[in-house]
Amino acid sequence: MTATPDVEQGPDHAARRNRVRARFADGEFAGLLVTRPVNVRYLSGFTGSNGLLLVGRDGDVLLTDPRYAGRAPREVGDLRVEVERDALVTAVGDLPQGALALEADDVSWAMARRLRSSLTRPVVASTGVVETLRERKDRVEVDRIARACALTTEALTWLVDVHGLAGHTERALAVALERRFVDLGADGVAFPSIVASGPNGAVPHHDPGSRVVQQGDLVTLDCGALVDGYHADCTRTFAVGEPDPVLVEVYEVVARAQAAGRAALRAGVCAGDVDRAARQVAREAGHLEHYTHPTGHGVGLEIHEAPAVAPGSTATIDVGAVLTVEPGIYLPGIGGVRIEDTLVVDAHGAGRVLTDLPHELRVV
Amino acid sequence: MTATPDVEQGPDHAARRNRVRARFADGEFAGLLVTRPVNVRYLSGFTGSNGLLLVGRDGDVLLTDPRYAGRAPREVGDLRVEVERDALVTAVGDLPQGALALEADDVSWAMARRLRSSLTRPVVASTGVVETLRERKDRVEVDRIARACALTTEALTWLVDVHGLAGHTERALAVALERRFVDLGADGVAFPSIVASGPNGAVPHHDPGSRVVQQGDLVTLDCGALVDGYHADCTRTFAVGEPDPVLVEVYEVVARAQAAGRAALRAGVCAGDVDRAARQVAREAGHLEHYTHPTGHGVGLEIHEAPAVAPGSTATIDVGAVLTVEPGIYLPGIGGVRIEDTLVVDAHGAGRVLTDLPHELRVV
Repeated sequence: MTATPDVEQGPDHAARRNRVRARFADGEFAGLLVTRPVNVRYLSGFTGSNGLLLVGRDGDVLLTDPRYAGRAPREVGDLRVEVERDALVTAVGDLPQGALALEADDVSWAMARRLRSSLTRPVVASTGVVETLRERKDRVEVDRIARACALTTEALTWLVDVHGLAGHTERALAVALERRFVDLGADGVAFPSIVASGPNGAVPHHDPGSRVVQQGDLVTLDCGALVDGYHADCTRTFAVGEPDPVLVEVYEVVARAQAAGRAALRAGVCAGDVDRAARQVAREAGHLEHYTHPTGHGVGLEIHEAPAVAPGSTATIDVGAVLTVEPGIYLPGIGGVRIEDTLVVDAHGAGRVLTDLPHELRVV
Repeated sequence: MTATPDVEQGPDHAARRNRVRARFADGEFAGLLVTRPVNVRYLSGFTGSNGLLLVGRDGDVLLTDPRYAGRAPREVGDLRVEVERDALVTAVGDLPQGALALEADDVSWAMARRLRSSLTRPVVASTGVVETLRERKDRVEVDRIARACALTTEALTWLVDVHGLAGHTERALAVALERRFVDLGADGVAFPSIVASGPNGAVPHHDPGSRVVQQGDLVTLDCGALVDGYHADCTRTFAVGEPDPVLVEVYEVVARAQAAGRAALRAGVCAGDVDRAARQVAREAGHLEHYTHPTGHGVGLEIHEAPAVAPGSTATIDVGAVLTVEPGIYLPGIGGVRIEDTLVVDAHGAGRVLTDLPHELRVV
C-alpha cells in the first residue's frame, strides 16, 4: 500500500502552529494572539470573518462567535474552539507565565489597549511572525496555486483564441475572462482583472473601461483565478493587428527582462538581486525610467505577500517560495507592456513557471 | 434655469469633512487621522488601497503613494494630495496646537506606536466619529443605494421567472444571479450571494453548494448588487412546488414579523425597538428560539454598518438612515425562512422599501 500524498490530506495546520510555537520556546512568551484573518486561516483552516487564534506555549484555541459554532469545528479539526464572548480573556488567563505577543501590524490600537488594561501579564508587539512562515509554501499550497495558475492560463487562452479581443470593450473582456474562471472551476478571481488597451497600457493598474479594443492596439491582460483560498497572478500583452514598431521594440525588452528575472530566481538568492537582473535589461535598453514598479512579489493566501521582489529587498528566497516576475515598461500617452509569471522555487532550487503561456509577442 | 439636482453633482466631500471638523472646534484637537479605507472614501472620494486622510482644524490633506499620483487628484477634487513617504509626519507637524486623534478601532497598534513615539503632540484614541456621520445618508447616497436595490430586485425576478430554480445547484443559481447583476449594470456584488435550499435553509449564512433544488423545497436567496461603492441587501424565500405545511406556517410568521419591523422603523425610534417589534411576532408564535440573529443593520458603503438593529440597541434612527429589516426563523434539519428589505427613512420620517418585491410566499 502506498502512502497517501500530502496533497490529498489537506494542510497540516497543527504542524504550522508548532512552527509558530517554536518561536517562543524559551519561555519569555506565553503565546501569540493571531488576529490577521489570513494568518488565522493559515494556522487553523478557519475561514469565517470573525476568528482569533491563540497559539499558546501549551496549546491552542480558536475564538469566534456563535454564528460559527457549527462551521468552525468542521474547519479546524482537533483544535479547541470557543464561541463565548468572554472566552478570549479566559483563554489568555489560562496561559502559562510570560508575555502575550500581538500582531502589531494588524491588531487595532483599541484592542491592544483593552488587552493591556485587562491583563496582568505583559503585552508586547510582534511583527511578521506568521508572514515569514508563509513565505515557504508546502505541497498542498503549491498544488492549489498551481491549479489556480492552470485555470488562469486556460481562461486567457480561451479569451484570446475563442472569444477574441478586437471590437470588445475592456470592461466586457474583464467580465468574460472572470466568468470563464468560474466556469472552469475557480472559486472566484484573485483580484479585479486589468484589461488595458492602446494608450491605457501605459497605466500599470488601469481599471477596465469603455474603450473598445482596436486594430493596432497592444492589450495587457493581468488576471488570476482563486482556488481554495490561493491566488494566481499572470499577465500577458497581446497585439491586435500590426502594432506601433516602438511598442514591438519595448515588448522585446520586457520579454528579455522577464527571462532574466526568471533565470535569476533561485533558492538562496536575495530577492533584490532578482529585481536587479530584470531591471538591468531595461536600463541597458534606455528604459529604466519607464520601469516604474517592483519586479515581483510573493503569492499565496494573499495576492501580494512577502517577500517583495523590489530594489533593495534583502529577503532570501527559499525552496517553496512562490513569487511573480513581472517587469513592465510604460510610455505615457503611447502604451505599455507587462509580462508576468507566477513561479515556484522547486526542490532543486530553480524557479518553475506555473503560468505556462508563450512569452513572445502574439499578434491576434 | 433650474438648479442642478444634488444627485448629479456627486457627493459633497468637503461638507462631510466640515462635519468632522465641527467635532473638534473647541481647540483641544488639532485633527483626526482617518485610516479606515471606507471612511477615507466617504470623506474624500479616494478609492485607492493606500490612502490616509488628515482632517485638520485648519485644512485637510490626503496622503497616498506615487502609484496614485494621477488618480488621486482626479478623485478628490480640490483636496490637497501628497504622495511622498514622509508627507504624513510633515502634515501632522504642520497642524495647529492640540492632540491628534486616531481611529482606534482601525489604526494598527504598530502605527499608533510609531506616531506616539515620533510626534511631540498628544496622540489620542477616538471611536466611531465618521461611522456615526455615515449613518445619515445624503441624497447622492440614497440614490446609489436605491439603484443597487432596483438592480437586485430585477435580477431576483429574472432568476425566479426566467432562469428558474428547480433542477439547478445552489452554486449555479448564485453564479447566474451574480452575472445578471453585472449584465444589468452593477459594478459587482455587495457580498457573496446566499442560496440555501431545503434543509440548508436552516443555516442563516449557508454557502451555496452542490445541492440541486428539488420539488417541495423552500429556497432562500440573499443577495445584493454594488453600485458606485454602495450596497443593496435583499432576501426572499420561494417555494418550489408544494412545501412542507410546517414551513408554510413559518413563512407566515416571518412575513408578519417583517411587516411589524417595517412598520416600527421610523425617525426618532430606537433601533432596539424595531428589533423588538419583529421579534415579538416570532415570540408569540412560539418561534423565539429559532429567531437566531439581529433583525437588521445599516447599509451603505459597507454591507454591514452602524446602527445594529438588535436586541438592546440604543441607537436612535434618524431621517436618512438606511437599514435592513430581515427576520428569519430556522428549524434545524428541516429548513428556514428569511425575508429582508433594505429601507430608507425618508424626509417624512417613515421607512420606505427600496427592495420592492412581494412579501407573500410565491410558489414557483
